[in-house]
Amino acid sequence: MNRIKLTVAYDGTAYCGWQLQPNGLTIEEELNKAIEHVTGEKIRVIGASRTDAGVHAKCNIAVFDTESAIPAEKFSYAINRYLPSDIRIFESVAVEADFHPRHCKTKKTYEYWIDHEKFQDPLLRLYSHFVYGKLNLNAMRNAAAKLEGEHDFKSFCATEIAVKTTIRTIYKIEIEERGTQLIIRVQGNGFLYNMVRIIVGTLLEVGMGRRSEEEMTFILETLDRRLAGPTAPARGLHLVAYEFED
Amino acid sequence: MNRIKLTVAYDGTAYCGWQLQPNGLTIEEELNKAIEHVTGEKIRVIGASRTDAGVHAKCNIAVFDTESAIPAEKFSYAINRYLPSDIRIFESVAVEADFHPRHCKTKKTYEYWIDHEKFQDPLLRLYSHFVYGKLNLNAMRNAAAKLEGEHDFKSFCATEIAVKTTIRTIYKIEIEERGTQLIIRVQGNGFLYNMVRIIVGTLLEVGMGRRSEEEMTFILETLDRRLAGPTAPARGLHLVAYEFED
Repeated sequence: MNRIKLTVAYDGTAYCGWQLQPNGLTIEEELNKAIEHVTGEKIRVIGASRTDAGVHAKCNIAVFDTESAIPAEKFSYAINRYLPSDIRIFESVAVEADFHPRHCKTKKTYEYWIDHEKFQDPLLRLYSHFVYGKLNLNAMRNAAAKLEGEHDFKSFCATEIAVKTTIRTIYKIEIEERGTQLIIRVQGNGFLYNMVRIIVGTLLEVGMGRRSEEEMTFILETLDRRLAGPTAPARGLHLVAYEFED
Repeated sequence: MNRIKLTVAYDGTAYCGWQLQPNGLTIEEELNKAIEHVTGEKIRVIGASRTDAGVHAKCNIAVFDTESAIPAEKFSYAINRYLPSDIRIFESVAVEADFHPRHCKTKKTYEYWIDHEKFQDPLLRLYSHFVYGKLNLNAMRNAAAKLEGEHDFKSFCATEIAVKTTIRTIYKIEIEERGTQLIIRVQGNGFLYNMVRIIVGTLLEVGMGRRSEEEMTFILETLDRRLAGPTAPARGLHLVAYEFED
């Protein structure tokens, strides 16, 4: 039995997210089906990040076990033949049999794309959140800096989800201007449900002058979701890098 | 009566091109309908470039005449409210009553986007042509340089179309690497039917080593479409700039 690790890129527009569900097409379902075509085995991949409906990825991670004799690095080519064009395997490698992508120390990077123009660019509409009007990038950067480090991010977590701890570490938040786009890049050891999108929604309110940058510390400390900003739309969110430590 | 000039951006994926036709949705039809909503008048826009099915634009040009009292620069906002999100007016200005976008001296710029990676990026699949394998960019640049200047481009014109003359001037062809993408940028005073896509198809054959860069001159001189390369797919083509001279 071999465990194979896949690097998966996708346009999440057409999918109800990563995780298998009874009433909607998911990335996981497409992967399972494609790998079953290749190996002839019953497959259930284990995903690293169960991204939400509409969220995109440049490199999500999935593993599966197989008895197939296909060399690990050839799986990418073989599986891609059975995937729709909005999902692509960029790499396949063999890993240890006990490698589990959710039980590892990881460093994840998300980007949130904002189309910051007078009118929405049709070519960015599926991959960016359109924001019209002036944004104070300095205030946004100062507010973002207050989130860096280890904190209890309960205020930035969708309330529906029960987790053991809401403490996470954000290594870095950068706000980059790329043409007419604004890229908010967040790197951390893990993220709570909707955490990046709530951070972005709050930073945008700071950028628009509806909140002061100092408020960020207060929002963190109160541990109250209702004090943070709205959840920014899924379409702007991209999982762009996944590193496994040790 | 006022003549209004619109700068129109669109994702051409869902459309049967620019020009009105009985059996398929077109950009022109969507524009006519949206402007009719705004003005209450019967509208038929005049387009500068009647782009093909699947071709995209950052700035195609359209004009229309109206008795409406709406200030010219407000039309962009008003019309966008009635357009689908894959078409957007970026600018509206008043022009002289005799301004006709196809009877002007113009400088047009097209970009052709090539996704040049090991696997096709899902986020570029609608806007780029995917090319796998090594490309000799030097040879492509040398071949492209032979097309610059005034030439009879009959070999690079789809044969179906009758035109008065097949002589055109290409001011510049640049090939730029942008991340994993290759952008072929062609600037000229006008283009024959499918001309940019046939140029790109031929340059790619040079890049792949199937033709020598010297062949370009021979293809031009023979005036025979059959000697040029294949027509590259529409989805990679973007009309990106339109300048009217004098």
